[in-house]
Amino acid sequence: MKMMIPAGLTPVEGGVCAAKGFRANGIQCGLAHAGASITKKKNDLALIVADKECAAAAVYTTNKVKGAPILVTKEHIRDGRARAVIVNSVNANTCNPDGVEKANKMCELAAAELGLKPEDIIVASTGVIGQVLPIEPIAGGMKELVEGLTYDGNSRALEAIMTTDTQPKEIAVQFEMGGKTCTMGGMLKGSGMIHPNMATTLTFITTDADISAELVQQALSDCVKITLNMASVDGDTSTNDMVCVLASGTAGNKPVVSEDEEYGRFLMALQCIMTNLARMMARDGEGATKLIECIVEDADTTETARIVAKSVVCSSLFKAAMFGEDANWGRILCAVGYAQADFDVNKVSVEIASDKGAVMVCKNGAGVEFSEEEAKEILSEEEIGIYISLGCDGDGSAMAWGCDLTYDYVKINGDYRS
Amino acid sequence: MKMMIPAGLTPVEGGVCAAKGFRANGIQCGLAHAGASITKKKNDLALIVADKECAAAAVYTTNKVKGAPILVTKEHIRDGRARAVIVNSVNANTCNPDGVEKANKMCELAAAELGLKPEDIIVASTGVIGQVLPIEPIAGGMKELVEGLTYDGNSRALEAIMTTDTQPKEIAVQFEMGGKTCTMGGMLKGSGMIHPNMATTLTFITTDADISAELVQQALSDCVKITLNMASVDGDTSTNDMVCVLASGTAGNKPVVSEDEEYGRFLMALQCIMTNLARMMARDGEGATKLIECIVEDADTTETARIVAKSVVCSSLFKAAMFGEDANWGRILCAVGYAQADFDVNKVSVEIASDKGAVMVCKNGAGVEFSEEEAKEILSEEEIGIYISLGCDGDGSAMAWGCDLTYDYVKINGDYRS
Repeated sequence: MKMMIPAGLTPVEGGVCAAKGFRANGIQCGLAHAGASITKKKNDLALIVADKECAAAAVYTTNKVKGAPILVTKEHIRDGRARAVIVNSVNANTCNPDGVEKANKMCELAAAELGLKPEDIIVASTGVIGQVLPIEPIAGGMKELVEGLTYDGNSRALEAIMTTDTQPKEIAVQFEMGGKTCTMGGMLKGSGMIHPNMATTLTFITTDADISAELVQQALSDCVKITLNMASVDGDTSTNDMVCVLASGTAGNKPVVSEDEEYGRFLMALQCIMTNLARMMARDGEGATKLIECIVEDADTTETARIVAKSVVCSSLFKAAMFGEDANWGRILCAVGYAQADFDVNKVSVEIASDKGAVMVCKNGAGVEFSEEEAKEILSEEEIGIYISLGCDGDGSAMAWGCDLTYDYVKINGDYRS
Repeated sequence: MKMMIPAGLTPVEGGVCAAKGFRANGIQCGLAHAGASITKKKNDLALIVADKECAAAAVYTTNKVKGAPILVTKEHIRDGRARAVIVNSVNANTCNPDGVEKANKMCELAAAELGLKPEDIIVASTGVIGQVLPIEPIAGGMKELVEGLTYDGNSRALEAIMTTDTQPKEIAVQFEMGGKTCTMGGMLKGSGMIHPNMATTLTFITTDADISAELVQQALSDCVKITLNMASVDGDTSTNDMVCVLASGTAGNKPVVSEDEEYGRFLMALQCIMTNLARMMARDGEGATKLIECIVEDADTTETARIVAKSVVCSSLFKAAMFGEDANWGRILCAVGYAQADFDVNKVSVEIASDKGAVMVCKNGAGVEFSEEEAKEILSEEEIGIYISLGCDGDGSAMAWGCDLTYDYVKINGDYRS
């Protein structure tokens, strides 16, 4: 799929290992869960380690049911510092009576092998909810995991955090800050249980930029609102969502400690990383065949634009129509209409677009003549843009990402305990 | 499927014609829409007429995009009086520049043929959004429609309002009011674009009870909250939702004009009609193989119970698991957790039940040992109960209805312009 890279940023390889001084590894330690029909042959335990202590920030799910690792990670980065990330897939370590104990144990095991303190470790889990996490495979695999750490181990780590993902999702960019070349890279897992209400899914971002933990947190919180929070696969807000950033300072730039021009560059890089990861996630939504990008403009406020854009990409009926490549714009208007925001539906216009062209399907809240054949041709592409003007005087705008609703979504989630 | 009929109410045949003095008819007038792949051989125009003027009340969609018939009906029952209902399927008469004009024309045509005033007529449309409604087939069929009115024409009318419904949905009951036998019956269409945010779908209810329009409105608004508003198929709030009640007074009971015991009986009958119609609708949700009934108890407030119950029946992941007959209770807890209400997730318990038995799957927010085989057996039934205790001291409770998410939902809505 196409990457969106603004001017001033250069794409590079390496994902979470692209920035200087970050090693990673992933192994198959052998986690499985009761009811698993097959043991997937894939990595299930990942580790990312910085050569030096990093400024750290994170945003978490707002689901009241929270994975135990979330609670432990919150404690560990309370001081704005961290050094490593340990993550397992297969089992979410959520809704278990001993969840916090096990999440702490994961940190202790990693810390012991790395010669660090448990409080230096960020921990995350993803997988089936409500099954006790067996710690033995993790304990048994820790030595191998640490010994295998390399400065190009990003792909092994990425494989270990994937669940129903069909594509690895990572990106890295370089940018200038204070005359120095900085690098930032990220990886993301997420395909189902994806709904914009906070960080959504697991995302890990590393950078060698030198910047205060407070500003990393601020940049991250701002970016989440317009990137991961604007993506939805199925309306289900995960219990284990977490996005975190580690900034090592190894690049040697003058430390960023205020919202100056250099901070602006950092923010642009972070937004680029997170926007592209969000788009990759939506495109790889469970069962998806298409990425849907909804752009809302001419809104009174940014908030209104966001609410409308999210409402459209979340509509099951609209998503099924996209799978059917049917320009059933009435379903778009319907989703615009039930969005909980204030605007005049009689001023709404809708355009459907892709690399095959663009066609206006609705103007001032009513249908306009268009060629169904042309529309079908446009919708045959894998990346579809839905452009909505709310026709207000304001310049509020927003972008949201989703995917189509397909047989395979039902298959993946109707199958026993995916 | 099982009907839920409380003591004091007796089920009778006849749907909207069960009450004294209501005639109905449905014909195929020949409405079709651009893009329709086949002309369905089914009735598409319905009429219900009371022998005398009725107290009338209605509740409408809260979608900002409203079908033109909604606007016209609102005007016509502003005085709390109405005499007939004209409804077409196939075309929703929504998002059309001439929508209101056409909806008015439908009322004029029916009124002329019936010898009534257009203001006596309630009008509704359902079908594809955004295609101009051709008035000719309606004008051409009006004479036949009126001439064919009979006191047992409920089935013909019901067929005419159905779209993707696979089952006709009607019910009627008798009850005592002030020593007189009153009858109330209703019919409902609805299978997709169903989400609890107001009336949801088209529902027409007739009764011969004598009761003031104000009290009919109050009873209807109260019942909507706990019946139709608690049912969801796909999270999409329709643009054309409407539920209306016509009360003719023909039963001869002493007019009900205050919230006395007789009003209580009326309310009970109305709640029974609407609860059963809501359950039928959820069971016949597009592509559904199962009815899901979620009962939430021990909540601090009724509102909290409602929010949680709706959150569960709306979760795509949970619905797909029900299709797979998989007791994946983590998805239930996940949906409970992201419900926008205040409670302690560590006190939540979940039980799964059907005619095959019941099994506790989660207690105090954590999993408990249970037999997966037993759970699978329970979930093999067509009516599934999900019992959730929030473990609070309050006695707030609520019931919500939904269905499973299946391949057929995708097929029905991915197919061209269903």
